[in-house]
Amino acid sequence: VGCGVFKMLEANAELITARAGRSIEVVAVSARDRTRDRGIDLRGVAWHDDARSMTGDPAIDLVCELIGGEAGIAYELIEGALRQGKAVVTANKALLAHHGANLASLAEAHEGALFYEAAVAGGIPIVKSLREGLAGNRITRIAGILNGTCNYILTTMRETGRAFDDVLSEAQTLGYAEADPSFDVDGVDAAHKLALLASLAFGGKPQFDAIHVEGIRYVTPVDFAFAEEFGYRIKLIATARMLANGLEQRVHPAMVKQEAPLGQVEGVFNAVVTEGDFVDVAMQEGRGAGEGPTASAVVADIMDFARGLRMPVFGIPSASLADHALVPMAAHRGRYYCRLLVVDKPGVLADITAVFRDQVVSIEGLVQRARNPGQPVPIVLTSHDTEEAGMVAALTRIETLDAVVEKPCMIRIEPF
Amino acid sequence: VGCGVFKMLEANAELITARAGRSIEVVAVSARDRTRDRGIDLRGVAWHDDARSMTGDPAIDLVCELIGGEAGIAYELIEGALRQGKAVVTANKALLAHHGANLASLAEAHEGALFYEAAVAGGIPIVKSLREGLAGNRITRIAGILNGTCNYILTTMRETGRAFDDVLSEAQTLGYAEADPSFDVDGVDAAHKLALLASLAFGGKPQFDAIHVEGIRYVTPVDFAFAEEFGYRIKLIATARMLANGLEQRVHPAMVKQEAPLGQVEGVFNAVVTEGDFVDVAMQEGRGAGEGPTASAVVADIMDFARGLRMPVFGIPSASLADHALVPMAAHRGRYYCRLLVVDKPGVLADITAVFRDQVVSIEGLVQRARNPGQPVPIVLTSHDTEEAGMVAALTRIETLDAVVEKPCMIRIEPF
Repeated sequence: VGCGVFKMLEANAELITARAGRSIEVVAVSARDRTRDRGIDLRGVAWHDDARSMTGDPAIDLVCELIGGEAGIAYELIEGALRQGKAVVTANKALLAHHGANLASLAEAHEGALFYEAAVAGGIPIVKSLREGLAGNRITRIAGILNGTCNYILTTMRETGRAFDDVLSEAQTLGYAEADPSFDVDGVDAAHKLALLASLAFGGKPQFDAIHVEGIRYVTPVDFAFAEEFGYRIKLIATARMLANGLEQRVHPAMVKQEAPLGQVEGVFNAVVTEGDFVDVAMQEGRGAGEGPTASAVVADIMDFARGLRMPVFGIPSASLADHALVPMAAHRGRYYCRLLVVDKPGVLADITAVFRDQVVSIEGLVQRARNPGQPVPIVLTSHDTEEAGMVAALTRIETLDAVVEKPCMIRIEPF
Repeated sequence: VGCGVFKMLEANAELITARAGRSIEVVAVSARDRTRDRGIDLRGVAWHDDARSMTGDPAIDLVCELIGGEAGIAYELIEGALRQGKAVVTANKALLAHHGANLASLAEAHEGALFYEAAVAGGIPIVKSLREGLAGNRITRIAGILNGTCNYILTTMRETGRAFDDVLSEAQTLGYAEADPSFDVDGVDAAHKLALLASLAFGGKPQFDAIHVEGIRYVTPVDFAFAEEFGYRIKLIATARMLANGLEQRVHPAMVKQEAPLGQVEGVFNAVVTEGDFVDVAMQEGRGAGEGPTASAVVADIMDFARGLRMPVFGIPSASLADHALVPMAAHRGRYYCRLLVVDKPGVLADITAVFRDQVVSIEGLVQRARNPGQPVPIVLTSHDTEEAGMVAALTRIETLDAVVEKPCMIRIEPF
């Protein structure tokens, strides 16, 4: 990623100087291995074996942190640069999701600046849109596809009918997924990004730990078949909503209408839908990761700094960032898709529907795909709007029924 | 629109103050009719019968021009305010498309500022995206659905099979189209907006007069039927591309793939696709017009000014804006859809295909919808990539054939 930034600053130097009103010069770099051939010419650029030593150089106005990780050198580099009153541009969502509020205070205290457009969907200038372009709006909801790896896997599963593990292996071979994929496929990466977007949208401190996070491992080919039948696509959706009782933040697989904007975002693309009181619904789509899109976001931040833009990190002064009341997932209200594997015998449906009735969950539809007397068959139910607590209680009870042969699968249905 | 801005500043005052870092106060207003009840409380706000007199008030830092029209009071107000070194926020695409370069110079000369996010797709912060969010990129293409009225009409024609005139009348009744709809349906409004986006994307003076403009009046239900069959949607697309031989700017109906991002934008929504050398493809979608989205864009501009943002109007200093060489439409290369109405008799196809051969137009496919010996039947051809000059010459010649009973209809096919 660092190379991409260097290449972009070099390839488009003339244009960047004209648009930023001044030239941007790379005066120092640091990386793990000095000897590696990166295909860029570093003559005339100071080399630092330890990135942290760059913060002491008075010739440096701005430090780009593209190391990653929520602690360690990345944190020390950012903290050190801010303490020196330097500007920092980072793509580090994990670090900001955990330490964003403190770093925002630090930046303000030392009159530094902290930019992070590249931390969320590099190809989509969504941080700028929330902080500036839509800044007059009271935002009511933000929902996004924020992890390209998950979206690639889900898209491929849908198109090919293959299982998660199989598609994940292929994605790893193709370089679309990491050797250790858990940050991506378990929803953590999307949650880091959501914490930042929710902070910008609702003026609160990033609260990563308060996000309900589920990954995509439990979605099966059968679910895609049913989704297709019902007119849905299955996406890993990150949602933040300001409700009457507080802030709801969640990342989980969701069924969205095929024709809805987020239903049509395929492959490694990311997208964000924003709802505001005056702008209504706005959508942005682009590449989420990769050297080029990330460089595009980093360079835009550098140019903003060069132009003199100084903004509170999360849109308002850090002292004003709220600790919003949090809506627990159990209080979530919405529609649900539930897939059960049950032995095909008389009376099973009566037992199951009685449990839902007892939990005051109103069934909208029920589909049994095939008959196979005495053998397990999948049954799918969809609910009307209901509270998550009741739905979870119902499924917990249903799992104990003799005829139910595996843990029920529950996928939330989003109203768009 | 002015009321919408007033309402937004009032409704979200606290939030706007926190995000802008200072409060925004409306100190004066002007409108045609003072007595009209606008549902807003104007006590404590100075009233000007003549908007132009506001420019003399030293208490005013910023003037919002929401009158419209490329000359007259709107022009005089903007010019007067800029001469006083005031900031101007406008939604006036026509005025900027014609006078943008001069007004940019004027703003610079007097250290004023000129913002116009609301002039192009109010619900989409595309001016900001081009000028800032994607500013490190060399933009290669920009393509958009920039007129909600046209997109509403085309969407309705496709969904209902009804004819243009019929749907236009209904749109007028519903308030989606003006009593005099020509600015919208003849592509002029979209071209005004394209001139501004092209200027921002390619660093040139807005050149409205150089844009090839066609409206949607000639698209018929038959074309939608064929488009459906071929997997296309018909949209009014505004495109600007920087090619080896210069800048190509055009507004016309186009066939785009159903599954392409622009193919899925329906109803009154607008969308813009941007291609840059590092960011790759990015798309933004939102409402193009209406009180709320326009107010959202105007207020964002006001807040940018309040924060101290000062940017060259078209992204680079006005003295650096290029007079790009222009690619004439005759030199455009692309694929074409042609619909002919011909008498169904032997030899007609041979005559027609011979004309295309003579003009070196390579036919990709040909469909005759029905047989009706001796009577007119529609025939549709699609071409491989070819030059517009040859295609136009071929259709001009074909129109003179005895068996061809009406002017051929040509719709360009866009490669996305």
